[in-house]
Amino acid sequence: MNAISRLIKPQSIAVIGASSDLSKTAGKPVAYLLKHGYAGRIYPVNPTAREIAGLASYPDIASLPEAPDAAIVMLGAAKAVPAVRELAAIGTGSAIVLASGYAELGAQGANLQDELRQAAGAMRLLGPNTIGLVNVTDGITLSASSALEADAPPQGSIALVSQSGGILGSLLSRAAAQGIGFSKLVATGNEADLDVADFVDALVDDEATHVIALYLESLRHPAAFRRAALRARAAGKPIVAFKVGRSESGARSAVSHTGAMAGSDRMYDALFAETGVLRVREFAELLGVPQGLATRRALRGQRIAILTSTGGAGTLVADSLGLAGFDTPVPDEATAQELRAVQGATPTVLDRNPIDVTLAGLDPKLLRSAITSLMKSEGYDGVVIIVGSSALARPTLMASAIEDCLHISGKPVLTYVSPDAPHILAQLNRRGIPAYASPEACAAVFQALWASGRVAAQPQAETARQAPPPADPLSGLPDGSLDEAQAKRLFAAYGIPATREIVAATAEDAERAARELGGRVALKLLSRDITHKSDVGGVALGLDAATMADAARSMAQAVQARTGSKPEAFLVQEMVSGGHELILGLARDPLGTAILLGTGGTQAELLQDTVLAMQPLQRPLDRAEAEAMLRALKFWPLLDGYRGAPPRDTEAAISAIVAFSTMVHALGPRLQEAEINPLFVKARGQGVVAADAVAVLAPATEA
Amino acid sequence: MNAISRLIKPQSIAVIGASSDLSKTAGKPVAYLLKHGYAGRIYPVNPTAREIAGLASYPDIASLPEAPDAAIVMLGAAKAVPAVRELAAIGTGSAIVLASGYAELGAQGANLQDELRQAAGAMRLLGPNTIGLVNVTDGITLSASSALEADAPPQGSIALVSQSGGILGSLLSRAAAQGIGFSKLVATGNEADLDVADFVDALVDDEATHVIALYLESLRHPAAFRRAALRARAAGKPIVAFKVGRSESGARSAVSHTGAMAGSDRMYDALFAETGVLRVREFAELLGVPQGLATRRALRGQRIAILTSTGGAGTLVADSLGLAGFDTPVPDEATAQELRAVQGATPTVLDRNPIDVTLAGLDPKLLRSAITSLMKSEGYDGVVIIVGSSALARPTLMASAIEDCLHISGKPVLTYVSPDAPHILAQLNRRGIPAYASPEACAAVFQALWASGRVAAQPQAETARQAPPPADPLSGLPDGSLDEAQAKRLFAAYGIPATREIVAATAEDAERAARELGGRVALKLLSRDITHKSDVGGVALGLDAATMADAARSMAQAVQARTGSKPEAFLVQEMVSGGHELILGLARDPLGTAILLGTGGTQAELLQDTVLAMQPLQRPLDRAEAEAMLRALKFWPLLDGYRGAPPRDTEAAISAIVAFSTMVHALGPRLQEAEINPLFVKARGQGVVAADAVAVLAPATEA
Repeated sequence: MNAISRLIKPQSIAVIGASSDLSKTAGKPVAYLLKHGYAGRIYPVNPTAREIAGLASYPDIASLPEAPDAAIVMLGAAKAVPAVRELAAIGTGSAIVLASGYAELGAQGANLQDELRQAAGAMRLLGPNTIGLVNVTDGITLSASSALEADAPPQGSIALVSQSGGILGSLLSRAAAQGIGFSKLVATGNEADLDVADFVDALVDDEATHVIALYLESLRHPAAFRRAALRARAAGKPIVAFKVGRSESGARSAVSHTGAMAGSDRMYDALFAETGVLRVREFAELLGVPQGLATRRALRGQRIAILTSTGGAGTLVADSLGLAGFDTPVPDEATAQELRAVQGATPTVLDRNPIDVTLAGLDPKLLRSAITSLMKSEGYDGVVIIVGSSALARPTLMASAIEDCLHISGKPVLTYVSPDAPHILAQLNRRGIPAYASPEACAAVFQALWASGRVAAQPQAETARQAPPPADPLSGLPDGSLDEAQAKRLFAAYGIPATREIVAATAEDAERAARELGGRVALKLLSRDITHKSDVGGVALGLDAATMADAARSMAQAVQARTGSKPEAFLVQEMVSGGHELILGLARDPLGTAILLGTGGTQAELLQDTVLAMQPLQRPLDRAEAEAMLRALKFWPLLDGYRGAPPRDTEAAISAIVAFSTMVHALGPRLQEAEINPLFVKARGQGVVAADAVAVLAPATEA
Repeated sequence: MNAISRLIKPQSIAVIGASSDLSKTAGKPVAYLLKHGYAGRIYPVNPTAREIAGLASYPDIASLPEAPDAAIVMLGAAKAVPAVRELAAIGTGSAIVLASGYAELGAQGANLQDELRQAAGAMRLLGPNTIGLVNVTDGITLSASSALEADAPPQGSIALVSQSGGILGSLLSRAAAQGIGFSKLVATGNEADLDVADFVDALVDDEATHVIALYLESLRHPAAFRRAALRARAAGKPIVAFKVGRSESGARSAVSHTGAMAGSDRMYDALFAETGVLRVREFAELLGVPQGLATRRALRGQRIAILTSTGGAGTLVADSLGLAGFDTPVPDEATAQELRAVQGATPTVLDRNPIDVTLAGLDPKLLRSAITSLMKSEGYDGVVIIVGSSALARPTLMASAIEDCLHISGKPVLTYVSPDAPHILAQLNRRGIPAYASPEACAAVFQALWASGRVAAQPQAETARQAPPPADPLSGLPDGSLDEAQAKRLFAAYGIPATREIVAATAEDAERAARELGGRVALKLLSRDITHKSDVGGVALGLDAATMADAARSMAQAVQARTGSKPEAFLVQEMVSGGHELILGLARDPLGTAILLGTGGTQAELLQDTVLAMQPLQRPLDRAEAEAMLRALKFWPLLDGYRGAPPRDTEAAISAIVAFSTMVHALGPRLQEAEINPLFVKARGQGVVAADAVAVLAPATEA
């Protein structure tokens, strides 16, 4: 068992600085462990007490009878450092430091946190500035949080990992009121050592956990997180994340709170998309969506039945579902017949959905029959049952009727509780029937169920069927900025075709080049230093052999006038006409490396039509992933033959994206910057062509 | 006092079909009136009882001692019809018919509802299929709803009008739990007579009502609603609306429920924008936003202070505020100094916002001082106070501290309650401190406060400074579809310039016309019947005098081949180059008439870059409104000189929109259809030009 598993389910726990007064904060860890029935060995450490709450107490860490699996350090920021050092020295598995007063306070606190980290050595450390960890499954509380004064947190299959202790407390309080249970609760605090990625990784192997819910401010170890999230996906355990720092104000506030470097929010979206993490946008969904996923019922389609005994609420839920992309079709004939039989003589209109069973609402037998019909119906993939005010008097009746029908099929069944009725919500949730007080939450849960199913169904990345990598793609290329011709040569080595073009040193060379290329050509300044060529008069379009020499001479003068130095060389280039313009580039961020694809041209920039996809950790993007990027562009229909326009060579565009990603993968940190803008996508069958290119190479390291 | 005012505050109430058994549904109206202390005269009507609940009972309507202000009809659908007829006969002010079994059931029920409506004659009717009306201000309950079994609904200044009784009940139940009070509650049911517009209009004059909250399925009388909403805006009473039917599923469901024709959802947006109605997108906001507005505290800017004693929740709220466009700046120096003084020796970092006063959270004096500083600070326009778990034990302490500080300034103060604590939410709301359990709700309330302030600040529509209307714009124009030249002549009469063009009957005429116009010209089929000219080969571009005659002959052949008849005439037209293409048209909808403005061209249609604005009821759009439409286009930057492109003649575009709207206003229903596509907006100072035009005239009515 590794240290994290030992921390989550310790056989022995030391409490450093335990107070013999159990009502004091320092007395609480022992009190809570006893209160919630911890069955392992507890070792209070206190310089003066002989006994605490009936347990033998130890004067110092050195006198402990064994190296504990876990230690809770109840000392202030400065005193915690030597205690952690001593714990490490005796071979403790992990220490939890609850104290604040570290990196969250600024530079001085950060130094103390570094000391703490060093003192821990090989011992793992949770915190500092954390409220700790609760293993709800096994009733083990490693915390002094007053939230544990109450009854034990309800058991369930959701593991919650939060980068904020305050938010963990808030979610725990709200979940308890709603009857939502947990398997594990972890506040990671300042993450001096163990971070959210470590716990995700450990929870993938935790049998009691079906869903992992994350409250995130920023990821300190994005690559580790990606690996852990991919493992969770492979294990079929959905991760649901709520992440702050979405706005400038929020980011500033999150940064100040955690002291971590935040990646840009769009990069987080890309990372979550890559790893199958379901991102929720509303705070309440961080409980509601995991609760909906925890039943492990699969949504196989998007047709939802709504069973209601109150018209208004059914409409409300139908409207939210419709906005979220779901359909609420009328019952098919077989189902309608069954429902008619259920209703007997009651006049209802069964060609509708919401399916209004006003009278059945109070008759459990009728209710069971109606639910049974919908569970069996081939016309529906999921069911929402509206709980109206008629249930207020006898909530158990409806809850039992639903519960009895759950075995009939594996379809997801949600409930929407229309009146204010927290006790009904709690009762339903406790019985494994996800219950919501907001119509938008029902829609969000179905969306998550749908997305989760698609994540699971996603094929494994194809084995690349690319041409073998070039023998030495960087041969002959300098470090630093490449000029346009060099950059294109590099990209061409990976299979991305460029415009036909000839490097010319003089005006006469340029004229010869124009004659050789034929037709209309462009003349460009060729320079490793000047990236914005047109700003210095370094681009001239629509030339031919007759006009080229003059154009080259006047360009040389213009460039010299503006930059103070003569151009070393020119690039004479065929002109590409028609074709749809794309941008294809490399984006580096603290979160990782991403491939950026966008529609080119002025208007596209105005509309910000770009897509970011994470460069996978161990391989290039495959064709399916590249195609998904292309299809995610708003302008995709223009590539696909919109309104009778000729369809473009999207297969060649996909190949170019894969080739670019292959290059990024092969060159790693050597390739600092890379961008093709524009990449022209020509008519189907005619390929793509890079008309301009930028690349920057880092010097090879000596490793 | 009109009938609606008498219905809202009746001096006398008859209950038709009252039961002497107060526990039965038919006994409840009398029971509730007594229970909630109705001070007026109650007349039970029952064929056999002499006395009901100590009140004299009357055997029939004819024997009532006076014509009551209001009557509650407790009879079934069929029996209600003669009762309503008798009530009308004795001069009753209004009748409320609670029974269902009318239009909501389909065609047969709709017939019965028509009968009911006719039986009411001049008497006003609320319902049928309604749960009635509660005047909370005056303790008058005109309902049999079991929601009234509980204590009286909490008093407040929010009037709630709902087109669904079930939803009214749901909102009432939720509001009561949150301590949110009401002035009036109305369920309008099937709206056979009185509808949501009537009640909005009446509530504008209700002193106890500050904010009007609406749950809408569809508006039956949009023009009346617009007039009432504009009155509410003029009176400074915000209207907050939640409307279903946003999605196809929802619309289907809403239509089936109310039997009303739904306008398209975008038209509702246009109508709400015109009338200053604040539309909320989440159901919970239909209570939360009115509660935030009910304090009538004005938000003068977008800088929000967050005072917190728990870091995580402050970050969460800051993030939501940031996403909603608000700023959470750090305290200015003066405010920071005051806060430092408040904190004394406690180590806090005051150059941040959320402003963390961890220790002050439990000390009411410190808390008061901190809130005072923020209320007085010139750096903040609004304040959010985070209520953490430390308040759970002593909620009154914090509520009182905040309440004591409300007088210091008129800034809005909201609270966010982090743990599950309905009792704290209720206590805060009851004291006039809007309280929320979701960070998104805080942001939505600030957005509504901000939008509400801008609605109030909106200048009155300018008096049109247009040229006097043309003497007889329709002179010489036929009824039905106009041809392109006729449509352009009509639009030009209102001041919208068209391309230079000449109508030509023959190929030779066309050649002469091309010579006269000079340069490159277009040739178009001129027809009143064929609107899609290019589909039948009726458009040829880039011609000149030399090529015109041949082109006209071959077009004539092509058109004849495709349509079976020879073109009657051609239009020879200058070609417009450059210029930004717009679409300007008239959109008719059950909700009203709107002006549609959009970016032209293929890509714009792909991106759906269009804006709808309601044509005002009594006047054309003014320049400010036209400019707002133009600026609402995604492509607005392209008109405004994006990235160094030449700016377009936006003044001329605004004039064209105003002229179009002036035409729509002047011609009224005579103008059935009208569209200019494209309208070219040329470089600044060079005006606009309509390059194609469609118009359809209805025959003049004989009135």
